[in-house]
Amino acid sequence: MFTVYGMADSGNCYKVKLALEQLGRPYRWVQVDSTKGETRSRDFLARNANGKVPTLQLEDGGYLPESNAILYYLAEGTPLLPADKLGRARALQWMFFEQYSHEPYIAVARFILRYLPADSARRAELPRLVERGRQALSVMEQHLAKEPFFAGGRYSVADISLYAYTHCARDGGFDLQPFASVRAWLERVRVQPGHVPLG
Amino acid sequence: MFTVYGMADSGNCYKVKLALEQLGRPYRWVQVDSTKGETRSRDFLARNANGKVPTLQLEDGGYLPESNAILYYLAEGTPLLPADKLGRARALQWMFFEQYSHEPYIAVARFILRYLPADSARRAELPRLVERGRQALSVMEQHLAKEPFFAGGRYSVADISLYAYTHCARDGGFDLQPFASVRAWLERVRVQPGHVPLG
Repeated sequence: MFTVYGMADSGNCYKVKLALEQLGRPYRWVQVDSTKGETRSRDFLARNANGKVPTLQLEDGGYLPESNAILYYLAEGTPLLPADKLGRARALQWMFFEQYSHEPYIAVARFILRYLPADSARRAELPRLVERGRQALSVMEQHLAKEPFFAGGRYSVADISLYAYTHCARDGGFDLQPFASVRAWLERVRVQPGHVPLG
Repeated sequence: MFTVYGMADSGNCYKVKLALEQLGRPYRWVQVDSTKGETRSRDFLARNANGKVPTLQLEDGGYLPESNAILYYLAEGTPLLPADKLGRARALQWMFFEQYSHEPYIAVARFILRYLPADSARRAELPRLVERGRQALSVMEQHLAKEPFFAGGRYSVADISLYAYTHCARDGGFDLQPFASVRAWLERVRVQPGHVPLG
């Protein structure tokens, strides 16, 4: 059985939970609270030297970090990953987009507003985070105006990856009203069989 | 034949060039200078709505952005990607590490020092970038003290991805002297058959 080291309110950890639930794979969840320094403990760093959740413990005892690498690993050979080479590359294209052009703005804005005190100096970062996050939403909107999902014409781990922090973007101060195709896609993802909410 | 839209001095674009050369795949290179706004032109945004190089034009005319998704696409089915599922996940683990925990510090520090004027206000970012970049080098050092390469025990696209900005980290103000295993790995990568330099 898999063990997920994760924090329930983290979108990156939610990705792994959602994929495991939809694939019907049993797992054990070990709560690790990064806001209390638990990802920097000696024990945890032995599991993932980069000190981040989620980290998946495999059935052979090894550890696999990086939410999107975990998604790919779980989905390979299942309907959650396109069966053709270009489809897999498209799924990865959007998962790298998520980690480079989306999460560092939308998830970080959410973190500042949800976890840091109202007088935190990091609030000064918000205008830039909101501007860049909106750019990411606009790139998604352009794609979703033409396609129902991100890769291969059907629901895949690319959708799970981008859903994780887009569906709670309001927590980071983002207004999804101008992004009609993104909102319709969020609803298509939410009604997939086996869907579970964040938390 | 592939067409690479890229900027010769960019590490992200160099990844694609190095993989194509080592795989012996013919390609055409179209220079796109992001420092002159050429990735924000109407023509270029029609190729990649996210406005970034590299973007690969496929043989069917379609476009694939995201350097690491391109690497994976080119390497699938070749010796540059592990043949087993866990090995592929390990390659992706390090490629996601590269885009989230390495490139945003080491490549951005290099960009500020190499492309912006000496009195740029962005120099204020350098102390944080250097601290985070050193953390990434330290995570690499721990892995490379035990393993010769990043995934599957042999040279792969994970090494190409991390080599791109590590081998020129000095441009960003990083001293590699404390990272002996990283330096030995850089040399192992540099002597791989078909290796070509950045630029």
